[in-house]
Amino acid sequence: MSKDDQSPQFTDRFRSELLDLFLWRRDVRRFRRDPVAGEKVRHLIAVSTLAPSVGFSQPWRFVTVDDLARRAAIRSNFEACNADALKSQSGDRASLYARLKLEGLDEAPVHIAVFADRTTEYGHRLGRATMPETIEYSAVMAIHTMWLAARAEGLGLGWVSILDPARVTAVLDVPADWTFIAYLCLGYPVEEHDTPTLEREGWEARQDISDIIFQR
Amino acid sequence: MSKDDQSPQFTDRFRSELLDLFLWRRDVRRFRRDPVAGEKVRHLIAVSTLAPSVGFSQPWRFVTVDDLARRAAIRSNFEACNADALKSQSGDRASLYARLKLEGLDEAPVHIAVFADRTTEYGHRLGRATMPETIEYSAVMAIHTMWLAARAEGLGLGWVSILDPARVTAVLDVPADWTFIAYLCLGYPVEEHDTPTLEREGWEARQDISDIIFQR
Repeated sequence: MSKDDQSPQFTDRFRSELLDLFLWRRDVRRFRRDPVAGEKVRHLIAVSTLAPSVGFSQPWRFVTVDDLARRAAIRSNFEACNADALKSQSGDRASLYARLKLEGLDEAPVHIAVFADRTTEYGHRLGRATMPETIEYSAVMAIHTMWLAARAEGLGLGWVSILDPARVTAVLDVPADWTFIAYLCLGYPVEEHDTPTLEREGWEARQDISDIIFQR
Repeated sequence: MSKDDQSPQFTDRFRSELLDLFLWRRDVRRFRRDPVAGEKVRHLIAVSTLAPSVGFSQPWRFVTVDDLARRAAIRSNFEACNADALKSQSGDRASLYARLKLEGLDEAPVHIAVFADRTTEYGHRLGRATMPETIEYSAVMAIHTMWLAARAEGLGLGWVSILDPARVTAVLDVPADWTFIAYLCLGYPVEEHDTPTLEREGWEARQDISDIIFQR
């Protein structure tokens, strides 16, 4: 469909609400245990595939994880990796790290592992000869699309990255040549905030924008 | 701010408009030459920093490229990389590839190169010990945030990936340990569509959603 037909005209009000969505999207680690309908999960995955992908390669692969033994194995891997991570922090920062809740694996009703498939023939390799990593970047934008769509429905999403990709791939029995991107927890959040958890907890502050813009 | 204060309540209308935003965001390669105000560009960069980042590391680095010699060097690198890419296609597909317009470097008034900085101390390395690539993924989500915010303002964005990262890093004279993520063209689009260019041009079709969802 082209502009002359029915391209949307976005309003100031929509832009203001979109900014609110960006501001109130959070990495959620505290979930209510209320279930999320399977239809809603499938809808969110469908929406996420509207993300851009290099050469229209659509390399995203979504694995919903319901099996309790697999969930327990993921949890166990998180605990091992997180214990290692704690060892690399020291002093007061180690104490603070130990107090942070970094995942909602036990409470979140929905678990979704996301992978990217570099072997896909979709897109006929257009756009990715010099930068094959754009395949993974495409899956990341699908995740971000899901994150925003979920938040607009009152759902929270948390991205767990403290995991060993090879172990996750084995636990979930997916092709070894898929790249593990993220393990997502999805559910209704206990609370809502417009600042990141790590900012509220004193772990890190927001960087001045002048420090991240350069001119050439 | 917590929920009891002023967390936004998103409406069905907002969700419908958000879906329109996802549907009508495009990778734009045909730009009008009308300028985009510097204030607007700075605003879009500021909004993009509301994206999630691993451990709140905020590793995104935005380089606005105005210098004509540098722009010409980027264009030249694109042409070399694209000529190589064309050689890897054959038969009818090579003919189609040669006809595709894959970038708007000449027309787009604003050029922004985006990098990710793995050396940043922001975030104190939280969340990225086992998956350091989450630094690059964070910058990708900032780009996607900018993409959506731009489209909501009637602006189009195009992601050029047919470039040699080492060459771009040299041309733009940025730290060699930054990771080049994307070269973005930004401006007002000539036309608006709700389907990808590569789908309209017959390069690739949309994949069935059943083929990208797996259960475990």
